[in-house]
Amino acid sequence: MPMAASSRPQHLIRLGDLTRGQLDDLLDLSARLKRRAKKGGAGELVGRTAGLLFFRGSLRTRTSFEAAVNQLGGQVIHLTAASDFWELEEREGAVMDGRAPEHIKDAAAVLSCYVDALAIRPKPSGSSWAVDRQDGEIRAWAAHARVPVINMESALWHPLQALADLLTLREALGELGGRRLAVVWTRSPAPASPAPVHSLLHAALRFGMNVAVAHPPGYELDNEVMSEARALSAESGAELADALDLTAAIEDADVVYGRSWQSLEDYGNPTLAATRRARSPDWTIDERLLSRGRQARFMHAMPVRRNLEVTDAVLDGPHSLVYQQAENRLHSQKALLSMLLR
Amino acid sequence: MPMAASSRPQHLIRLGDLTRGQLDDLLDLSARLKRRAKKGGAGELVGRTAGLLFFRGSLRTRTSFEAAVNQLGGQVIHLTAASDFWELEEREGAVMDGRAPEHIKDAAAVLSCYVDALAIRPKPSGSSWAVDRQDGEIRAWAAHARVPVINMESALWHPLQALADLLTLREALGELGGRRLAVVWTRSPAPASPAPVHSLLHAALRFGMNVAVAHPPGYELDNEVMSEARALSAESGAELADALDLTAAIEDADVVYGRSWQSLEDYGNPTLAATRRARSPDWTIDERLLSRGRQARFMHAMPVRRNLEVTDAVLDGPHSLVYQQAENRLHSQKALLSMLLR
Amino acid sequence: MPMAASSRPQHLIRLGDLTRGQLDDLLDLSARLKRRAKKGGAGELVGRTAGLLFFRGSLRTRTSFEAAVNQLGGQVIHLTAASDFWELEEREGAVMDGRAPEHIKDAAAVLSCYVDALAIRPKPSGSSWAVDRQDGEIRAWAAHARVPVINMESALWHPLQALADLLTLREALGELGGRRLAVVWTRSPAPASPAPVHSLLHAALRFGMNVAVAHPPGYELDNEVMSEARALSAESGAELADALDLTAAIEDADVVYGRSWQSLEDYGNPTLAATRRARSPDWTIDERLLSRGRQARFMHAMPVRRNLEVTDAVLDGPHSLVYQQAENRLHSQKALLSMLLR
Repeated sequence: MPMAASSRPQHLIRLGDLTRGQLDDLLDLSARLKRRAKKGGAGELVGRTAGLLFFRGSLRTRTSFEAAVNQLGGQVIHLTAASDFWELEEREGAVMDGRAPEHIKDAAAVLSCYVDALAIRPKPSGSSWAVDRQDGEIRAWAAHARVPVINMESALWHPLQALADLLTLREALGELGGRRLAVVWTRSPAPASPAPVHSLLHAALRFGMNVAVAHPPGYELDNEVMSEARALSAESGAELADALDLTAAIEDADVVYGRSWQSLEDYGNPTLAATRRARSPDWTIDERLLSRGRQARFMHAMPVRRNLEVTDAVLDGPHSLVYQQAENRLHSQKALLSMLLR
Repeated sequence: MPMAASSRPQHLIRLGDLTRGQLDDLLDLSARLKRRAKKGGAGELVGRTAGLLFFRGSLRTRTSFEAAVNQLGGQVIHLTAASDFWELEEREGAVMDGRAPEHIKDAAAVLSCYVDALAIRPKPSGSSWAVDRQDGEIRAWAAHARVPVINMESALWHPLQALADLLTLREALGELGGRRLAVVWTRSPAPASPAPVHSLLHAALRFGMNVAVAHPPGYELDNEVMSEARALSAESGAELADALDLTAAIEDADVVYGRSWQSLEDYGNPTLAATRRARSPDWTIDERLLSRGRQARFMHAMPVRRNLEVTDAVLDGPHSLVYQQAENRLHSQKALLSMLLR
Repeated sequence: MPMAASSRPQHLIRLGDLTRGQLDDLLDLSARLKRRAKKGGAGELVGRTAGLLFFRGSLRTRTSFEAAVNQLGGQVIHLTAASDFWELEEREGAVMDGRAPEHIKDAAAVLSCYVDALAIRPKPSGSSWAVDRQDGEIRAWAAHARVPVINMESALWHPLQALADLLTLREALGELGGRRLAVVWTRSPAPASPAPVHSLLHAALRFGMNVAVAHPPGYELDNEVMSEARALSAESGAELADALDLTAAIEDADVVYGRSWQSLEDYGNPTLAATRRARSPDWTIDERLLSRGRQARFMHAMPVRRNLEVTDAVLDGPHSLVYQQAENRLHSQKALLSMLLR
């Protein structure tokens, strides 16, 4: 894919780091790479190495990303936080007489000598949403690295999931403008991060989809993410409805997207979170609900709790896109790597 | 190696998944790849990726398997259970409101999108032999994966070790029919799994070897494995003798194969196991014993406790095949990968 | 690089394993590979695999080494001590009825069947310097392996760091004979190993540099390393001054090399070490000190505690070579791998 150097993004921390033109190019390239995958890779990354820094575990993201690098002919160096890493100082000008033996600026500069990209999954503190939503750790890596930094899911954003989601939506619906997406909260004993929903919300609105978000009271998405979403909605003319009831959101939807996200009000307070969870409605997406949409397809970023968040019948039925979505992680990440590293 | 698609096995959970014809092809290919290794690989697996899932640690199996993939030009993604994996639900139709956040059917389907084979070492519960011998975990992976699943040693079987053993036996003895194999229990403070012996037993009988198994009372091999072994013996006319004394088994043997396997009667009961171990005879294979065979060679799957299971003089002497056996792990796994993935 | 097989070292445990001619060749090749890196690798290691055994964590050494192998077209198998390894018996002839299930001679022989080199970072006991300074573990690997063993930093030596340091010194100063190197102890709440300083000291003296070592009383380097250093100094005519004061060592230096090394007198005694540390002077290298040299450059093997060991102004200023040093790990290791494995 010919792409002017000037049009290449430096890092990918959030989807907003890509212009609409870059996003379109990336999705087109994803589709081409997906077709080409049947007959082997072309070696865009031969001799290139990506450094993986996972401060939290990962199954899908890590495997699909490593496979993407490998299929393009590149190599991966996987550094695990526990055994390979120590605490890093982030404060500028600090007198480093504490526990951290190394400054993040030095770790970032040194690793930039060895690898061609840094793919990082930071570990949020989990105690304060006001702090964690700043994504300070991955932003510090991006500020100091001399190679592209790719966000493998931070507290606020999961851009790689959103790229795969966009590719899947395009494959299922064609032109996205005017189509209806229902983003539906589901219940779980161990609720997950809202990051994939934040990224998806902006992505869908930028492509002109009408978005309806359904969740019980107390499960509002991040305030500033919602403000930005409303601005995107005003800009593109796409509708955005929030805090809907389950049934209302799914009505006439083309795609229903399930996710069990945690309450940000209770962030860092497990007791409150457990209490709220006990009072939460048991929203489970089943075939009856899905049938209220317009031949609605079902999407989910996984892991998914079967028969709690959504029934086997939906997941294994003809309207499920969940495996296609998972496979598209691979193709869209290959496209992204080609853009960032060629 | 030209091989009709129809003759390719789908998975390798036990050696019985391979027909005799496939086994012969595989051993011939192993020998060719071993000769070729001196002058570099031919790249059969360029652009292919194998996913490694080790729920228990491994030295030989993991290193030889990764090296096999690499030497054929492929890549490996190594997922460690502790940091990358969570508990997986295995029950069909379960309402997943417990600890497991993901169903094994989803994990298997998703990983199948990213890699070309899954090499799995499950971790048996260790509490019930009746349960563990079912190999439920690796069979569930095989049932749900869309790519070949390779058993890196389960509770019941270790087919990769048996392939290397067969290759080594052929190199040492030529035609195997009618030759005599003594499988000898040895003592250890931390006895190991009988899986390699189970796989070897069937392999040797299928190739017409006469097999004599020696062990103290209480160290009987798995009942059903022995039943199948007797059926194989009846079919091929090869002799099978069980529960022999050390000296009787080695008499006239062409090959003595040592292994310290645990008592399945005491499985899951460390107190009983320790008591039995204290009463067990101290069978150590030394040169005097080995000399009772017919210029007998010595084999062992390792790790081996020197001067407890077998003396330094035997291990480091001219009749030892243990390093050749270990090296053959590499060549036979390359042949297997070629068969499963080309 | 044409190099007679006879001139190839077998292992690299310490820099003394390389002749001066080999060292010169290696540095020349490093420089050529560094220039070539701009336009991609040449595949010297295609089809070759290096086994990495880290019994302690590592950031720079591991990443730069893996990247070096990858950039030359080779592959790495990374075995982590915790999950993949068990205790190894090292005593010759032992009756192995204890905890160790495998002898190091067997582990080394078996891994030698699978990989083309073993890169090992042992974990010293930390309790006795007299014992740890023998580097018994890595020497046992070297004694039993049939492939080259590369020391990734033992208790006594860090030859890979010294190779990068030599390359950096040559780049900065040209001909090294007669130039002045100040090796300066710095303070840290968690002092590090003297191994990089031991290796550097010999390296610099072999290339004819005059070396001044500055440290407070009680921080003497290893006795035998210093004896050898004095012999090298006598041989080459290069000056060697020890136990200098901070200012005296830096006077007229061309290069100032900082390192916070632990007191070997207190080795294995954390209470004594903490007491000594509390009484130690707060030597921090700043611009004023550095200006006493001859346009002196600053070097440090990292990790570095900013504003404690050395100020931000020095580290981020025009005389700092620390990132160049870190980058040179990559190029000199590529040269070493080419020498050992081609």
